[in-house]
Amino acid sequence: MQQIHRVVVVGGMHGNEFTGAYLIKKLERSPHLIQRSSFETLPLFGNPQAFQKVRRYIDIDLNRSFLRQDLDNTALTSYESQRAKAIDRQFGAAGETPVDVLLDLHTTTANMGQTLILANLHPFNLQLAAWLCAQNPQVRVLSWLNSGWQDASIKSLCTFSFSIEVGPVAQGILYADAVLQTEALLHQVLDYLEAYNQATLPNPTPPLTLYQYIKAIDYPRNDQGEIQAMIHPHLQFRDYQALNPGDPLFLTFDNQTICYEEEATVYPVFVNEAAYYEKGIALCLTQKQRIALS
Amino acid sequence: MQQIHRVVVVGGMHGNEFTGAYLIKKLERSPHLIQRSSFETLPLFGNPQAFQKVRRYIDIDLNRSFLRQDLDNTALTSYESQRAKAIDRQFGAAGETPVDVLLDLHTTTANMGQTLILANLHPFNLQLAAWLCAQNPQVRVLSWLNSGWQDASIKSLCTFSFSIEVGPVAQGILYADAVLQTEALLHQVLDYLEAYNQATLPNPTPPLTLYQYIKAIDYPRNDQGEIQAMIHPHLQFRDYQALNPGDPLFLTFDNQTICYEEEATVYPVFVNEAAYYEKGIALCLTQKQRIALS
Repeated sequence: MQQIHRVVVVGGMHGNEFTGAYLIKKLERSPHLIQRSSFETLPLFGNPQAFQKVRRYIDIDLNRSFLRQDLDNTALTSYESQRAKAIDRQFGAAGETPVDVLLDLHTTTANMGQTLILANLHPFNLQLAAWLCAQNPQVRVLSWLNSGWQDASIKSLCTFSFSIEVGPVAQGILYADAVLQTEALLHQVLDYLEAYNQATLPNPTPPLTLYQYIKAIDYPRNDQGEIQAMIHPHLQFRDYQALNPGDPLFLTFDNQTICYEEEATVYPVFVNEAAYYEKGIALCLTQKQRIALS
Repeated sequence: MQQIHRVVVVGGMHGNEFTGAYLIKKLERSPHLIQRSSFETLPLFGNPQAFQKVRRYIDIDLNRSFLRQDLDNTALTSYESQRAKAIDRQFGAAGETPVDVLLDLHTTTANMGQTLILANLHPFNLQLAAWLCAQNPQVRVLSWLNSGWQDASIKSLCTFSFSIEVGPVAQGILYADAVLQTEALLHQVLDYLEAYNQATLPNPTPPLTLYQYIKAIDYPRNDQGEIQAMIHPHLQFRDYQALNPGDPLFLTFDNQTICYEEEATVYPVFVNEAAYYEKGIALCLTQKQRIALS
């Protein structure tokens, strides 16, 4: 990548995730807070109508509405389809003011702590992630590659895009710790981009621990699709902790434990995320990798 | 009160509180679990349409729809108005099968632990509460009297009615610990009612610590009604802990602390409950009382 000229910070893509929504409202009032000397930064409120109604979305999930074929499909006219198209016309690669780097702010009911999500493993993204972890050891980095979702999210608008997931945070609340953590991460990323533009990044880049998406696991369901078991108490809030063969996975309503029966140790993420019940996801499994970068 | 003949256990009054909803689904499949020898127990699913949509309600809050004048008002035709009228026709004092004791299962995003809520201070209700606390020292008892809501909730259907609030639980998830705690409380209450009918209650009734509702406090808002501050990190999750004059209450988005300025020590509850943002409630203040009962 050459110089970075334009950064977009997105919040409120899901109307019931208040952290990003209220941070964007703050940045719209005080845009100087996110300016740096070498690029401009624009705040973008993703889904204002869903925020008004305190719902994830009005018609469909906005952050699954950015597939290129959907953006080009004039037959799609839902509120979120129109919103995705408008954002693409503004900030997409062929848009009026194409974005160079995009940062999308989210919360989750899972205990994901402070997570940076990558949609692809471009060296620039890996280096930013490694630097962020070195600055803030609480940050974990998740690669969403191969999830099937990376091309449908707003992160698909440009190669250099990230989302920040902070949790556990209930939907529809302002949880101050999460707001402060998200804001601090946002400023650390902007500082990195400034240092990149000014060629003052430290060398060498430290190695990176990456949690690589493997697959999603649904709740046990009956023939009518009704959920038959809950995340087991031993797994609840244990995102990023090793799940070994034989460990408890679910607890049925009749108090029967269902264990993880596969052979490999994996690292669960998005354990019991409220918004994923409808998507058929109880948790996602990842593989923990160590990557040398320079 | 004479003998108890009919107990109704309600869940899913709010469609995004999964604990009660899934417990009622379980009890509809296995009604023998809540039978006792001296009375019948009926499970009631409060708001099935809201549960399908994972929302608190469709049109209006079902648990604020039981005012007598509203139940008698034929002009009120929203989904929840109709649902409240149907429940009243079935279980109200003039209904087909009037309920003697009602137990309504809820969750909250506030750190309310295991709370029993009383709508009135009838000696029977206080004695049940005191017994429950003696059985389970984690239980706290909140009196909702004078909140202005007690007559609008489903608890108004009969004098001997209670709700159980367990939290913190995010909306739209099954949190196994909360489900197990709620189920245990439900069975402890049924056991108490059985002992009452059989006149085998222990004597004397232990004294009761009661948190008595004083008033609600809203978030700081601007002229457009927009929230200007969050629950302060020092107050978050501190339900039932003393709030003294000068203690932090809110944190503005510009990192200014707003303190509690009144003169009396109070005990906050429903701190940062998601469903109360729209009701203009950031937290409720209570007074802690010790009541001798026998």
